[in-house]
Amino acid sequence: MRYSGRIWAGACMLALATGAIAKPMSQQEVEAAFDARIDPADLQLWLKDLSSAPNNVGSPHDKANADYMLRLFKSWGWDAHIETFSILYPKPISTTIEMIAPDAVKLGGQEPPIAGDETSTNTADALPPYVAYQGDGDVTADLVYVNYGMPEDYDALARRGIDVRGKIVIARYGSGWRGLKPKLAQDHGAAGCIIYSDPAEDGYAKDDVYPKGGMRPPESVQRGSVMDMPIYPGDPLTPGVGATPGAKRLTRAEATTILKIPALPMSWGDAQKLLAKLGGPAVPGGWQGALPFTYHTGGEGGVKVHLAVKSDWKMTDIYDVVATMKGSTYPDEWVVRGNHHDGWVMGANDPLSGNVAMMGEMKALGALAKQGWRPKRTLVYASWDGEEPSLLGSTEWAETHADELKAKGVIYINSDNSERGFFHAEGSHDFQHMVTGIAADVADPETGATILKRSRAATLVGAYETKGGRNRDAAAVAAAEKGGDLPLGALGSGSDYSAYLQHLGLPALDLGFGGEGESGGVYHSLYDSYHHLVTFDDPGLKYGAALAKVAGRAVLRVADADTPPMRFGDFADTVATYLDEVKKLADSQREKDGKFAKLLGDDSFRLAGDPLKPVAPPAPVSATTPTIDMAALDAAVAKLKASATAFDSAYADLGAKIAPAQRTKLNGQLRSIDQLLLDARGLPGRPWYRHMIYAPGRFTGYGAKTLPGVREAIEERRFADATTYVGITAKAIDAYAARLDQARATLMMR
Amino acid sequence: MRYSGRIWAGACMLALATGAIAKPMSQQEVEAAFDARIDPADLQLWLKDLSSAPNNVGSPHDKANADYMLRLFKSWGWDAHIETFSILYPKPISTTIEMIAPDAVKLGGQEPPIAGDETSTNTADALPPYVAYQGDGDVTADLVYVNYGMPEDYDALARRGIDVRGKIVIARYGSGWRGLKPKLAQDHGAAGCIIYSDPAEDGYAKDDVYPKGGMRPPESVQRGSVMDMPIYPGDPLTPGVGATPGAKRLTRAEATTILKIPALPMSWGDAQKLLAKLGGPAVPGGWQGALPFTYHTGGEGGVKVHLAVKSDWKMTDIYDVVATMKGSTYPDEWVVRGNHHDGWVMGANDPLSGNVAMMGEMKALGALAKQGWRPKRTLVYASWDGEEPSLLGSTEWAETHADELKAKGVIYINSDNSERGFFHAEGSHDFQHMVTGIAADVADPETGATILKRSRAATLVGAYETKGGRNRDAAAVAAAEKGGDLPLGALGSGSDYSAYLQHLGLPALDLGFGGEGESGGVYHSLYDSYHHLVTFDDPGLKYGAALAKVAGRAVLRVADADTPPMRFGDFADTVATYLDEVKKLADSQREKDGKFAKLLGDDSFRLAGDPLKPVAPPAPVSATTPTIDMAALDAAVAKLKASATAFDSAYADLGAKIAPAQRTKLNGQLRSIDQLLLDARGLPGRPWYRHMIYAPGRFTGYGAKTLPGVREAIEERRFADATTYVGITAKAIDAYAARLDQARATLMMR
Repeated sequence: MRYSGRIWAGACMLALATGAIAKPMSQQEVEAAFDARIDPADLQLWLKDLSSAPNNVGSPHDKANADYMLRLFKSWGWDAHIETFSILYPKPISTTIEMIAPDAVKLGGQEPPIAGDETSTNTADALPPYVAYQGDGDVTADLVYVNYGMPEDYDALARRGIDVRGKIVIARYGSGWRGLKPKLAQDHGAAGCIIYSDPAEDGYAKDDVYPKGGMRPPESVQRGSVMDMPIYPGDPLTPGVGATPGAKRLTRAEATTILKIPALPMSWGDAQKLLAKLGGPAVPGGWQGALPFTYHTGGEGGVKVHLAVKSDWKMTDIYDVVATMKGSTYPDEWVVRGNHHDGWVMGANDPLSGNVAMMGEMKALGALAKQGWRPKRTLVYASWDGEEPSLLGSTEWAETHADELKAKGVIYINSDNSERGFFHAEGSHDFQHMVTGIAADVADPETGATILKRSRAATLVGAYETKGGRNRDAAAVAAAEKGGDLPLGALGSGSDYSAYLQHLGLPALDLGFGGEGESGGVYHSLYDSYHHLVTFDDPGLKYGAALAKVAGRAVLRVADADTPPMRFGDFADTVATYLDEVKKLADSQREKDGKFAKLLGDDSFRLAGDPLKPVAPPAPVSATTPTIDMAALDAAVAKLKASATAFDSAYADLGAKIAPAQRTKLNGQLRSIDQLLLDARGLPGRPWYRHMIYAPGRFTGYGAKTLPGVREAIEERRFADATTYVGITAKAIDAYAARLDQARATLMMR
Repeated sequence: MRYSGRIWAGACMLALATGAIAKPMSQQEVEAAFDARIDPADLQLWLKDLSSAPNNVGSPHDKANADYMLRLFKSWGWDAHIETFSILYPKPISTTIEMIAPDAVKLGGQEPPIAGDETSTNTADALPPYVAYQGDGDVTADLVYVNYGMPEDYDALARRGIDVRGKIVIARYGSGWRGLKPKLAQDHGAAGCIIYSDPAEDGYAKDDVYPKGGMRPPESVQRGSVMDMPIYPGDPLTPGVGATPGAKRLTRAEATTILKIPALPMSWGDAQKLLAKLGGPAVPGGWQGALPFTYHTGGEGGVKVHLAVKSDWKMTDIYDVVATMKGSTYPDEWVVRGNHHDGWVMGANDPLSGNVAMMGEMKALGALAKQGWRPKRTLVYASWDGEEPSLLGSTEWAETHADELKAKGVIYINSDNSERGFFHAEGSHDFQHMVTGIAADVADPETGATILKRSRAATLVGAYETKGGRNRDAAAVAAAEKGGDLPLGALGSGSDYSAYLQHLGLPALDLGFGGEGESGGVYHSLYDSYHHLVTFDDPGLKYGAALAKVAGRAVLRVADADTPPMRFGDFADTVATYLDEVKKLADSQREKDGKFAKLLGDDSFRLAGDPLKPVAPPAPVSATTPTIDMAALDAAVAKLKASATAFDSAYADLGAKIAPAQRTKLNGQLRSIDQLLLDARGLPGRPWYRHMIYAPGRFTGYGAKTLPGVREAIEERRFADATTYVGITAKAIDAYAARLDQARATLMMR
């Protein structure tokens, strides 16, 4: 559906290309003028500068990049400053990984230069392969291969009598979030953890390796954070408050998000030297990677590894570059837009591809402003530091300015690494319809079709070619078939929206392109470079420019609307879908529990197994799934649907006609409506996460869990919690629906 | 369900262990006496002898094995003889395969000896790596990798602009039957075809390779037949008639089942030398195997291969060893039991594991007979020759004795390669309940549970652990959950039942164990040896002995019953399921055609693709799927269900009480009932296959297609054929139902 005229009322006066104010412009004309000022050549130039040296937290170039952006932002007319926070940030002093037995082989060390990749020699300030917020230590132990290192993998090992206590585990990347791997290893008593990149995940099994193709070469290592972010992100010493000079800080030992055991990442070139020597049984089905030998579990004493990590646990400054442009009509309503600027090494794709798109928006908006245009609402653009270690810059800024953000924030719009391919968006569903409208107005740089049409084509062709086998996309397929909205995915974690959405309750969007580049093959490595990006990921930065047009439109349409373009029926329908999923989850888990008990009782697991390779039956479940009374949620969702439909309909009739006082009242009611979805108690065991609709999963890391208080309680068999959170979640939804009723009353005032 | 007393009426007189006739014995006692005479040590001894040298068709040891069995069968009291047929059988004179460019590398040749495998040095008479009934030739051409070489793979290449005309293709084993690969290569204009064993299929990606484990080592090659058996099996010169001295023969050029282009199989050790050098684009998704590099399609001229095969196309004798034991009561009713004795090299697992089980049955039955027991019906045991090249021995014997078999045959019971694991059975569904009854009476050698219980446990645990994701097994899971029959799989092709079931219309069963051995790793190679079998596949031949107990029971229960234990409701229910599948196939194909036309019409395929790696849209379909009137089949199946239920119920009431004349009449009516499922016209394009319920798929090879006249016509868009075969198939089912009504009338006679 094309973008409707509802918020064109936000039109102002501007010359279309250059020159001074000429005549009143429609929102469409503003957007055309904005587009005309987005130049991919700018983006490419900035990208080359920003990614010319390592820009990890604490590096000189990271600080230089902040200063560079500050100068640019000011030159474009923005009111800009750098905001600094002081963070506990471990800097590696030494990282040791070597095979002790059966052979003595030194492993690890920096990734080597690659011919043609100009920045790959520039490693003086680069981090070695390292995972931030691991626990330091010096251990030598027998090695056990634990597949992805997820809970079910440890179950499979236990059924085979393999115990990881006191061992060093080696897990492959994939399946679950990086940080869960050493955390679960630690929970199972392991002494250390290695995480390696199997070529099945992002190496030769996917496509040609760098530099011939874009995928991960043998020596490349994925760095990353292993902080326990599902508990809370940001500075480990200041949960819930800004890491400002006067903040009360925990000690390092008190910080629950820092691991206790040493961990290091590894290339597959190194990993194969270890894995090829492992003894013990051949791995269970699904555990084999793409290395050319049969994988074994190890754990029989054949391969001993020495793993030692020593870090300097010092306080480090991070640098958020924050720029504002004051709104003409609603200066105390903020549209916040962010992308981070720190990377693990050069960070050309992650995060600079998104950061330069955001810079493009800022330059264009600055140019418009210089010609007399002003946004109705205040724009706050931020280039965050320290996202990679733990969303540091965005979280600390959100916690520091929490009161002001809750009072003024209208929306937080995020981007991060992006590359050529298909438009995707995740976020708060009351803004879903706006996003679809934007996608209908932006052209795909390669095909000329709208990005909406390309995204729908990909969904439909994907469903056609997989014969409808992908259930996860069923809603997207159905929507694409009937030409409905692009369904927004739910936001979990993994980028800077987390504090705004899940801690403060602002609506949030995360926008990007992907699916055709090969940045995944150099993710968090030395080779995520300018050369790789312009060769494989986004030649000519065309998709970077497209992202600027999309995100800039989102900013403009919220900033300039008389009332921000929300549609509440979409949110209600989505929540209804989530509730349906949770009910099905409970039902199917209950049914499965029954089958499991029967299979356990009649010895079926033993009989189904190979008597010559015995595998013990699974452990009994801690509690079978009861019938959980969801009546309160049923009622709340029904009420939400009714209230949302009624409001949307009333707004369509009356929204353009209301008096200024009504508008002010209405905007106030809607601006903070998403905050009603928070509960001050937060989620069980992780009170920082307060949103009752969206959260990162406790055991998925980045992946979202919706209606998390209820869903995760069922999955983790905390059935009392499930019942409690049915009530808490229903109350939040009730409050949201009640606010919609109040807002409708405001509309109807005469 | 346990085996009921219905056919215990066939009890006779026999001493339980040894000694002379003592007292009348129940069927249960006969079976116990039979079991007591099955000795796994016998099986192991025979296996060692039979597999001590290559026993491919035409080899001295193959003939020696026939003579050896003849002596044994006679010594056990059987009336045995060797029946010889003269077959067109190509014997390789030379096989050449070499890389010409970019490097000159000789490839191919015999598999080398492996330490510990005693027979692997005994290759004087062994076939080199070779595929029988390929077309001979000497070609040098550019190489193209075609994935599995199935129709959709050629579609994918065409969409990428890659043409195989004049090229040599290299396909990996898997996905479809071996013989389809060179056939489809030829149909697409290729000059030659290589088929190799990717380690993803049966090498290190599955388990440790031989001799450490059982899987395929780098030098091992899968031989096999590439005759176009879905057209007709058996001697290519004598379709439909026995290859006896006076038979009218086609010329070699007239034989449509012989390929026209040269083809050879290859090890992955050799294949990787070629595949690693291929240029062109990286392969489409799903085409990557387990070798440690990115696979490319080739076809760009970088890798040139010389492939030359020369064979001696001579007439060769094959030797079926046929043994009979005359029935005491119904000598003109035959229970036919077969397994082949020829292999590709030593053939320890394929076929000798099944052949020695069958020998165990024969020795035990001979011993019982020496003690006075006789079967009521005549037993015909056959050890077939020439199964591997094309079901030669079984097909020619069936064609030669077709009239007698149609007049006397009650059932054909087959086995072939078997190994430790779970009992499985495929066949004619009117015997399904009997098979379940047998499975309830035979113990699994490792666990002591019945093989029925183990099989059900595997089904239920498999479904539980894959969360019900395996739709193909839905019927088996449902049956296992409610303790119903083990659903018989439908028979396609790939072993000696084909002529009996699909050409003559006898009911047939194929019985075996599997799922825990590793014979798949040495399938059709030099290493399918005694050492491999007793190490990995069936140590102590325990499962061989179990197979003898199962198949022997099937023989005994049919042979000794007053009326063979058939249950027609099972057949009716199964056919109803097939009809439901076919209707759903038509509906979903029609729906898919609509989606496809829409996607093609609105340019979605282009928009969903990567503009920098263009892939053309799929070709339009030749004809969209119409609504096909299946009313005749609906009516026939409804009638079949009613008639079957009525007969089963009447037999349960009256079957034990009828007079001898009624019994004779009833048995005559039921003995030939399955032959009514044939139609003389056969299937479109392949008249040899006359069964309207079961056939091997035209494009699946071994895999079955049920209601094949209708199902394949829909799949291949021959919609006029579909309508025609609705009528033909309905008529066959009607005839079957009418015969049931007649048989019920016989039961009710007073």
